[in-house]
Amino acid sequence: MAVDMATIEGLCKRRGFIFRSSEIYGGFNGFFDYGPLGAELKNNIKQAWWKDFVHKRDDVVGLDASIIMHPNVWRASGHVDGFSDPMVDCKESKLRFRADQLFFAEVKVDGETIGYVSVLEDENMQRDAEEKAAELKRKLAKQGSLGEIVLKNYMDAKPFEYELIPSPATGKAGSLTPPRDFNLMFQTYVGALRDETAIAYLRPETAQGIFADFKNIVDTSRVKLPFGIAQIGKAFRNEITPRNFIFRSREFEQMEIEYFISPYDDWKALHRQWIDACKAWFVSIGLPAKDLAEDVHPQEKLAHYAKACTDITFHFPHGLQELQGIAVRGNFDLTQHQNASKTNLEYFDEARKEKYLPHVIEPSLGVDRTFLAVMTAAYSEDEVPNDKGQAEKRTFLKFSPRIAPFKAAVFPLVKNKPELFNRAREVYAKLQNRWNVFFDATGAIGRRYRRQDEIGTPFCITIDFETIEGNGSVTLRDRDTTKQVRLSVDEVIKHIEEAGA
Amino acid sequence: MAVDMATIEGLCKRRGFIFRSSEIYGGFNGFFDYGPLGAELKNNIKQAWWKDFVHKRDDVVGLDASIIMHPNVWRASGHVDGFSDPMVDCKESKLRFRADQLFFAEVKVDGETIGYVSVLEDENMQRDAEEKAAELKRKLAKQGSLGEIVLKNYMDAKPFEYELIPSPATGKAGSLTPPRDFNLMFQTYVGALRDETAIAYLRPETAQGIFADFKNIVDTSRVKLPFGIAQIGKAFRNEITPRNFIFRSREFEQMEIEYFISPYDDWKALHRQWIDACKAWFVSIGLPAKDLAEDVHPQEKLAHYAKACTDITFHFPHGLQELQGIAVRGNFDLTQHQNASKTNLEYFDEARKEKYLPHVIEPSLGVDRTFLAVMTAAYSEDEVPNDKGQAEKRTFLKFSPRIAPFKAAVFPLVKNKPELFNRAREVYAKLQNRWNVFFDATGAIGRRYRRQDEIGTPFCITIDFETIEGNGSVTLRDRDTTKQVRLSVDEVIKHIEEAGA
Repeated sequence: MAVDMATIEGLCKRRGFIFRSSEIYGGFNGFFDYGPLGAELKNNIKQAWWKDFVHKRDDVVGLDASIIMHPNVWRASGHVDGFSDPMVDCKESKLRFRADQLFFAEVKVDGETIGYVSVLEDENMQRDAEEKAAELKRKLAKQGSLGEIVLKNYMDAKPFEYELIPSPATGKAGSLTPPRDFNLMFQTYVGALRDETAIAYLRPETAQGIFADFKNIVDTSRVKLPFGIAQIGKAFRNEITPRNFIFRSREFEQMEIEYFISPYDDWKALHRQWIDACKAWFVSIGLPAKDLAEDVHPQEKLAHYAKACTDITFHFPHGLQELQGIAVRGNFDLTQHQNASKTNLEYFDEARKEKYLPHVIEPSLGVDRTFLAVMTAAYSEDEVPNDKGQAEKRTFLKFSPRIAPFKAAVFPLVKNKPELFNRAREVYAKLQNRWNVFFDATGAIGRRYRRQDEIGTPFCITIDFETIEGNGSVTLRDRDTTKQVRLSVDEVIKHIEEAGA
Repeated sequence: MAVDMATIEGLCKRRGFIFRSSEIYGGFNGFFDYGPLGAELKNNIKQAWWKDFVHKRDDVVGLDASIIMHPNVWRASGHVDGFSDPMVDCKESKLRFRADQLFFAEVKVDGETIGYVSVLEDENMQRDAEEKAAELKRKLAKQGSLGEIVLKNYMDAKPFEYELIPSPATGKAGSLTPPRDFNLMFQTYVGALRDETAIAYLRPETAQGIFADFKNIVDTSRVKLPFGIAQIGKAFRNEITPRNFIFRSREFEQMEIEYFISPYDDWKALHRQWIDACKAWFVSIGLPAKDLAEDVHPQEKLAHYAKACTDITFHFPHGLQELQGIAVRGNFDLTQHQNASKTNLEYFDEARKEKYLPHVIEPSLGVDRTFLAVMTAAYSEDEVPNDKGQAEKRTFLKFSPRIAPFKAAVFPLVKNKPELFNRAREVYAKLQNRWNVFFDATGAIGRRYRRQDEIGTPFCITIDFETIEGNGSVTLRDRDTTKQVRLSVDEVIKHIEEAGA
């Protein structure tokens, strides 16, 4: 079902998945905290990825490089010079906007420009500007003028127009600057001094750490081409307009692989293999295959060194958007680092008796974006009978058992029967050895089920009178079907195991 | 056995546990990268901690807060004003030193000061200064002077002495400034502007994220006192003299718990329980109980709000040092945030029908420091017979199976018998479903064992001719004893399981 972002955000906050950072201080735009359930889900996503792409592959090793690296890493990679957005300042309000998100409409009457309106892109982007312009046009038409409206982006403004376009902050013209590049890297100073020599950056991507350590890993890890280096870790971008909840934030986490291949390898076939492997992984954590699509970047939109790039897209609440990019980057990065560091980074190909800089395929994925996709896909509503047999709306999260925060919840049917309660604690302890499990003895059993439904626990196990008086069997209730079956505790464990938890 | 830091560092680099950050650019002081094996070991340490202190406890929930938080968090916590080291600048060399690490000796002859020598504290600290002063004293004695040497710290210098003490950089007096506070937090700017209002900090500890989210978690997670909030994550301190490998670096990772208790609870008993639980956890990951000691902070050294603090210490290569601090902090932090944020953070005690700010016990641990302790404890040397039966020195890492990067390695005895090789791949695949396992078909079997010994793999499984021609049994070789036994594959799995992997 289609769910909107406000519903996801509300549920995330209400059930302790995600809070705005520093909320008691009014929040901090672009930063988020993962609460008790969010931390579990995020860890499970990361561990599932690491297991499939590092542990289960012979040809991928892991890395955990520092967030702050030598600033020359970012000079060589091109980030110091080129990792920027075009910005425009309003000299009056001192506010700054992304120039490519600022639109304006030039209003012409009888071929002569009579004024400008400006609209800042937001969630609804360009549409707003078009609507505003259309409104102005209607006004003009009412006055009998044959107005003409031309909608333009600030990036395409002519120099004389900078002075004429009203600031979105004040509504008055004359205060906007021409577009200027604004670097997205967070900057800090390392060491005792605060001067040019001490400037360092928070990494805006994890990939460069992999390239910087390429030689060390080749020298110490007995890897042979083709092989990959995988890394999970935080990255930071000073986005001017963070938006869409955790889809584009200022602090985020990446899961990246640089898969190094020989220039003689069939990169097209390997690229295809990686796209398929990544899609299969998304399915393994519960994203429906039908919601995943491919967006092949056209040749003319690729960076000069890139051979191809395919995005895996997903239907997020705010639209069809990139979930993962899988680029074929040639050997641009290793070449840059080899030149800048004056260190030979060539790989010796024993079969060919030849040295060369390997090329790379780069599957790059955001943890937070994956989290949002998982929440979106899992969000479900239906109607089930309540304790009184009346139909009641139910909200539940259909998480794959593989990544659900809790794999199961254990309930004693009643709280005040020591034998029953203690048996429930025993079952709980047994399951806890393997999984993260919830114990709940409070409230009507129906309410307890509902609580687990809303946090996506796939299985609820109830210890009842039959358990202690009969053959020891318990009830296992399935989150999605709400059906219950009686099983022995060992069968329950097997069932959870087979569900992929 | 006692192992020195250089040996640990060398092994870490050689086998891909830890590299200096940005090594191809000459390294970056105070930053380290965890290579393929280091990343595994570090993940295993973190996951073991999370499992024992979050998943296996009913009274602790997890959190994953952002690294960059609202700057008011750090104003309220006291870090903006007080988290600093005293620094002294050399105006001539433009170098900066920690004032409390700068020592000088005042040389007196016949009661009159005739000069000063200065010594910068390093690994050997004060001792160097004492030796230098003693040397000067001997010189004076040779000249027949009755010299007297007084060793002092720069923090205790009298104002007129600042001008007389030679700079450790130039050896000349007159260029040192008085001690000044230097804040250890890395600073950056968030958002479009770069002014006072945009300053933000990289968190110097994970603890404050827990306090800032305390209310959100109480409101959403059905927790009841006493309960803990646990967090693992990066923290950053701009140490002027990072030292002792990963023991004190500028970017590091913490595992912290704030365990909230009622002011009516017996905090002494709870403090004791936490000290014991933490020690037991260290033992569970392979630190010998005999190497762990307790260092109780004397009352007069505690912060004004603290009730007690006990460090768990460990014999690191550079001496007996703090591994973990377990402090009883009262309700200082919540009080500060309640006042600064003007948000009521009180907890409602249902049994007492009373509202109050909970107190906390804070077990705080560094992942990197734990890593170093684990490497130190695991490092072993012995003599074993080589393939020719001659005694050969062996280096091995005695990691607990719980945290070893690879739980097992699988070898086909020979590489060129397809049946044998394929059987080995089958066994490998079976083990890989559960654990991170290494496959190696290259080189003499003895050399393969030795490689695994040096990276701490507890078990090596060899598929030989008896496996394919006989009853399917394989050999299981134990890293520490080097003894081999024949077992079925299922028995091998059970053995690894029972070893705690």
